[in-house]
Amino acid sequence: MASKKLMNSVAGCADDALAGLVACNPNLQLLQGYRVVLRSDLDSLKGQVALLSGGGSGHEPAHAGFIGKGMLTGVIAGAVFTAPAVGSILAAIRTVAQVGTAGILLIVKNYTGDRLNFGLAREQARAEGIPVEMVVIGDDCAFTTVRKAGRRGLCGTVLIHKVAGALAEAGAGLKEITERVSVVAKAMGTLGVSLSFCSVPGSSKPTFNLAADEVELGLGIHGEAGVRRIKMATADQIVTLMLDHMTNSSSVSHVSVQSGSSVVLMVNNLGGLSVLELGIVADAAVRTLEGRGVKVARALVGTFMSSLEMPGLSLTLLLVDEPLLKLIDAETTASAWPNTPKVFVTGRKRTRAAPSRPSEAPDFTTEGTGPCCWGLLSKRMALVLERVCTTLLDLEEYLNALDRVSGDGDCGTTHSRAARAIQEQLREGPPPASPAKMLSELSLLLLEKMGGSSGALYGLFLTAAAQPLKTSTDLPAWSAAMDAGLEAMKKYGKAAPGDRTMLDSLWAAGQELQALRHPNANLFHILTKAVESAEAAAQATKDMTAGAGRASYISSMKLDQPDPGAVAAAAILRAILEVLQNLESL
Amino acid sequence: MASKKLMNSVAGCADDALAGLVACNPNLQLLQGYRVVLRSDLDSLKGQVALLSGGGSGHEPAHAGFIGKGMLTGVIAGAVFTAPAVGSILAAIRTVAQVGTAGILLIVKNYTGDRLNFGLAREQARAEGIPVEMVVIGDDCAFTTVRKAGRRGLCGTVLIHKVAGALAEAGAGLKEITERVSVVAKAMGTLGVSLSFCSVPGSSKPTFNLAADEVELGLGIHGEAGVRRIKMATADQIVTLMLDHMTNSSSVSHVSVQSGSSVVLMVNNLGGLSVLELGIVADAAVRTLEGRGVKVARALVGTFMSSLEMPGLSLTLLLVDEPLLKLIDAETTASAWPNTPKVFVTGRKRTRAAPSRPSEAPDFTTEGTGPCCWGLLSKRMALVLERVCTTLLDLEEYLNALDRVSGDGDCGTTHSRAARAIQEQLREGPPPASPAKMLSELSLLLLEKMGGSSGALYGLFLTAAAQPLKTSTDLPAWSAAMDAGLEAMKKYGKAAPGDRTMLDSLWAAGQELQALRHPNANLFHILTKAVESAEAAAQATKDMTAGAGRASYISSMKLDQPDPGAVAAAAILRAILEVLQNLESL
Repeated sequence: MASKKLMNSVAGCADDALAGLVACNPNLQLLQGYRVVLRSDLDSLKGQVALLSGGGSGHEPAHAGFIGKGMLTGVIAGAVFTAPAVGSILAAIRTVAQVGTAGILLIVKNYTGDRLNFGLAREQARAEGIPVEMVVIGDDCAFTTVRKAGRRGLCGTVLIHKVAGALAEAGAGLKEITERVSVVAKAMGTLGVSLSFCSVPGSSKPTFNLAADEVELGLGIHGEAGVRRIKMATADQIVTLMLDHMTNSSSVSHVSVQSGSSVVLMVNNLGGLSVLELGIVADAAVRTLEGRGVKVARALVGTFMSSLEMPGLSLTLLLVDEPLLKLIDAETTASAWPNTPKVFVTGRKRTRAAPSRPSEAPDFTTEGTGPCCWGLLSKRMALVLERVCTTLLDLEEYLNALDRVSGDGDCGTTHSRAARAIQEQLREGPPPASPAKMLSELSLLLLEKMGGSSGALYGLFLTAAAQPLKTSTDLPAWSAAMDAGLEAMKKYGKAAPGDRTMLDSLWAAGQELQALRHPNANLFHILTKAVESAEAAAQATKDMTAGAGRASYISSMKLDQPDPGAVAAAAILRAILEVLQNLESL
Repeated sequence: MASKKLMNSVAGCADDALAGLVACNPNLQLLQGYRVVLRSDLDSLKGQVALLSGGGSGHEPAHAGFIGKGMLTGVIAGAVFTAPAVGSILAAIRTVAQVGTAGILLIVKNYTGDRLNFGLAREQARAEGIPVEMVVIGDDCAFTTVRKAGRRGLCGTVLIHKVAGALAEAGAGLKEITERVSVVAKAMGTLGVSLSFCSVPGSSKPTFNLAADEVELGLGIHGEAGVRRIKMATADQIVTLMLDHMTNSSSVSHVSVQSGSSVVLMVNNLGGLSVLELGIVADAAVRTLEGRGVKVARALVGTFMSSLEMPGLSLTLLLVDEPLLKLIDAETTASAWPNTPKVFVTGRKRTRAAPSRPSEAPDFTTEGTGPCCWGLLSKRMALVLERVCTTLLDLEEYLNALDRVSGDGDCGTTHSRAARAIQEQLREGPPPASPAKMLSELSLLLLEKMGGSSGALYGLFLTAAAQPLKTSTDLPAWSAAMDAGLEAMKKYGKAAPGDRTMLDSLWAAGQELQALRHPNANLFHILTKAVESAEAAAQATKDMTAGAGRASYISSMKLDQPDPGAVAAAAILRAILEVLQNLESL
């Protein structure tokens, strides 16, 4: 599976990827016949120092993503994980020299092949009289003892592109830029970690193997194994281990970060790590550094220098002062440089106080009515709610049975959970006397305690229904409340009458309740018709195919049983009617 | 392996990732007690329409990466692949309303949970008197027939964030923004494809299974399976299939892109695809669209809306006109919005002509000498080269045997390859009469035909050595040439004398050749000493541990055989000496 790749051919993959980059970014152009990408405004760079970098492919967006005003002038790419050809490097140097740039700096990651090929092209260019300097970047912190080959060039190289680019854009000379970045390059360190390997296009073999509970530490960017294999641990533990290793003064390749230091932190996705995990690691890195008294000046999080699809990351620390930060902050048009605020990360307030709860709007429906009326209304509503609850509890088994035909068999359980929550609330005190408030409170309760889509839908229905009742509680207002609730349910639930949902019963009742809007409407006559109509609609769902909700996934199957949600809604309406009739007859 | 994740806890992963985002981006703040991220300059937004979006976690950088001036005001996140809590949405709405914004637009991806929870929060906020509108985005092109639930909300939602953000920043009202983005949302489509699944934190099960030669087409962004499983194919074929599907006018969810249309193209990494592959797909998409007469106005390539670490991508097409493009191009500080040039992709020149070869510098060493001298020099050099070649060919087996002790046993083969290339070149014509030119040409030949580090190192040596010989060919110039070559080899190859490499022999010879700088130096006496010294140095490598080159990886092992590169270099010097002595004695 690891070798499955989206490409046209193994041989063409580096060229195709470069072509894609250039196609999508009109600021870039390919150099005909070479694996070279250059700024398309190259001819405007007369008199300015040019910066070329590059390396093998497979590290995207490095390096061509960092071409632009304020960063690189051009990039030379090799095949996947292979140093660029000397001919391409020389062609890039010649092209950039021929537009009249004031010298060229080659920024090279310390890998033997890159060093040799860039070096050779440089010597040939110098033989042609072109002023070319070269800096070799080694930011790897993996090895604790001196290696003849030096530290490998890793993600920190991108920071050098940035610093050199800002200097060149500001008009600095070749010698000044070369000296400055050589100093900056010594003040940084990078360490990689990965959960798994990557695989090179065309190869069926992973670059290394790793057990399910192991993590590879200190890897390069060519899929090669690291210096140490550790047991899987939490993000905090792994980040702590990495930062310990990187800043351990007994390691020859450490970066001297200590309490009081200011650093730029890079959290670099090696390719296949989820951005979720990258964020978690970034959080751990900032917390750990700040816990050690280190000031994080800027934190760059993203994919900068990858190793194909490797599910890992690298951390880079660069010691900075204000002048260096200015260069990091300088404007660039490079597509892969992140959009980062130009303020210190450390010391900023990261939370905002929660909002105040809105002050209760005056409820005119209870205004002007004495405490006696108030109490009566509240008591009546309590009786209605009690009956609704016992009705639903009685129906639990039946609703679950119906739901087993078309859903996951928990419709009765869900409604019973709601009923018990309401009962508990009633035991704590009477419902608000205002119908609008009562429906709003009920909405929040169902939302929290009923759960699932049913809870959200009843919550929506009740919240919307409460609105018309804020200004009036006469019969037309109750019809308007029903309509508002139905409208909200249709809108957000994407159900319509006939879709075999609870909406079918409520909709049928709502149609009958329109009659409440007529002067001299007979409440009980209309209510009775509404309940009967709801019950008929619930039974009619037997013959419907599901059009919304969970049952819609078994689409056109004949179900032969009514929808449990519709049955429950009709039963609730019946319960309300019965209580109101009892109260009337008292 | 799939369930290995870099996190601290499953329950805390969404919160930790948000904390990381906020920690690294001082433009953002968390709302205390809620899973809400807001612009930290919220209080400056009085009188402006606010935009809130959000959804489950696991889609990073969506949605919080798109918070900023010119895009979103804030985002509400849920647990991984779970709709945000109504309480958090309501808290975000209240906070944003309390700073005095001029209405709030909720931008919601069309998934049932998101629709219900955002809808409910909206209804509650409206009940509190807050003006809140809501647009539900469905850009999925996967389903060809009408679905009651509508099209799913995918990566195109990010374009709506952009358009709405630009409008809000420009001072548009809530109604205008709502209407405008509702129209824009209908003019786009998205389709996903993946090489494999992703796995939800805490779950050991992949979200679906896929054979090694299969690709999943038309997936959502919650790891769910797609609408179709196709056989693995090339990037071009898969992109063609995707674009066919997306623009097929017989599909109800198609986007009406046709010849003459202008589009914004998004190539979105679903999480774990290598950036190399993303570039290849972007290239295929631009080529295919342009091949159909579609004008690609902008191409946004990157990770916008992911599905954890899923190794796949989605393509989004948005039909645009100039006014809409202005909104896409408007400035934003959102960290995850790409840095994209504000010019059409289609119609731009994507290549630049190769550089002209530098005009040959006049070579004073052959100036003023007659054709007779010229021919003699060239003939002598041909004889030297011939002898070097036969010497190396004779040594092939011996050098390979030496190399099997410390390397990969091909040192003789590599040198023989060089020898045969030189012989072939000599058959085509005599070498240049100028020593500088001869060394330069030899350098290019070895570089191209010898290959590997040896080819690059000899190439470097010869290129550097040629320089002093451009202005003089007297004896001191030859010593300077040797020094320049050695210096280049040391510098770019990172080897020093004593590292058990070819440099050991050459260095020893170079020390003796210093004597050539003295007036009245005896050429043959000095040359003989140089060759003897080189041979002794080659033998002395027996007792050295490897400090550079491939042999350094078996570090401190005693090798008991001389280094084959050093032996070959000494043999070359001996061959040169012998031919010169023969010529002298003629």
